[in-house]
Amino acid sequence: MNGAIPDVVVLRLPLYVRALTQLQDSGMEVVSSHALGDKLQITPAQIRKDLSYFGRFGKQGRGYNVGYLLQELRTIMGLDQDWRAALIGVGRLGRAIISYPGFSREGFQVVAIFDASPSLVGTALDGVPIRAMEDLGLVCRDLGVHIGIVAVPEEHAQGVVDLLIESGVKGILNYAPTSPQVPEGVWVRNIDPVLSLQTLTFHLKSAEE
Amino acid sequence: MNGAIPDVVVLRLPLYVRALTQLQDSGMEVVSSHALGDKLQITPAQIRKDLSYFGRFGKQGRGYNVGYLLQELRTIMGLDQDWRAALIGVGRLGRAIISYPGFSREGFQVVAIFDASPSLVGTALDGVPIRAMEDLGLVCRDLGVHIGIVAVPEEHAQGVVDLLIESGVKGILNYAPTSPQVPEGVWVRNIDPVLSLQTLTFHLKSAEE
Repeated sequence: MNGAIPDVVVLRLPLYVRALTQLQDSGMEVVSSHALGDKLQITPAQIRKDLSYFGRFGKQGRGYNVGYLLQELRTIMGLDQDWRAALIGVGRLGRAIISYPGFSREGFQVVAIFDASPSLVGTALDGVPIRAMEDLGLVCRDLGVHIGIVAVPEEHAQGVVDLLIESGVKGILNYAPTSPQVPEGVWVRNIDPVLSLQTLTFHLKSAEE
Repeated sequence: MNGAIPDVVVLRLPLYVRALTQLQDSGMEVVSSHALGDKLQITPAQIRKDLSYFGRFGKQGRGYNVGYLLQELRTIMGLDQDWRAALIGVGRLGRAIISYPGFSREGFQVVAIFDASPSLVGTALDGVPIRAMEDLGLVCRDLGVHIGIVAVPEEHAQGVVDLLIESGVKGILNYAPTSPQVPEGVWVRNIDPVLSLQTLTFHLKSAEE
């Protein structure tokens, strides 16, 4: 079904999951697209359109069953299973990423680490051995790596992404300040703090006026 | 005007700016809400509603003037001016953040750094002196810091955010894996790679089926 669903719809799914989790925690059993829209500041029509890609979750005039919709979305998003990731690049950023507590808590395990520096290869980071870039293909296939976390300098990012794709990896979390190109069937998410800062400055500027 | 504009609308503004910049670079002078919607996978109605918060940019049936809309949005978002930031926390993550090349390129300058560790205070990171947490209020006011970049462990994040707010900072870029609470008139953006990973796994799971 995935081919038919626009990526921007997919990007909104975690927002729905987070909002529905909060509603469930507060004991709410049914929510209308209007109420969910108010909470997320998305139009009810957009919400109905987004969810319609995945099936019929609500009855006209009845609203959505919170628990059922949440469980369905979690399954659809693969949040009910574990995922294996490889980290590429053990600079400041890579070291910061590996120590981020959120990943393993949410079912993401870094099972392999790679770096181009001979002085790092053979050492370990948080218990995971650092391997040579030449071994990336073999190791990723061997360990069944699903996701590559790219933390190399901007100029090496595309090359590393290409290597990962050749090794069968289909999901890329890219921290380099560039947007790597990938073929159809591979997905990239760019972690871009500048975009976040740009939405902050809107508020700061407005407050000054 | 800022009070009236939902934050989720603001979060979409950088996407409009990026798309309009690409259209401008490709020589396009006018774009309809339908064409912009196709590019961004947002409904034309949502786009018209989003932009209507900021004024009347298009004429019925005529589309938007790309260059004009882009310039207006950049001004509205404060992208035409420089912003001063303070970094709090000089662990792995803080060191990674300070070396991120995207910030200064886009007009964001880290003018002050703070850490709780006495062994770090008095040293410098990329030419910026590391100061004690006790000096945060005075220094932030003195240097006119607009934005605090929080890179401390989860359990200290709320305390640091409170300190920044007391010091007159109204924008927070939070890297700790938690959502700090802030009063009205202060804005937070959380950099949360887990949300990004969750949208990747949707595609990976769909591709397997």
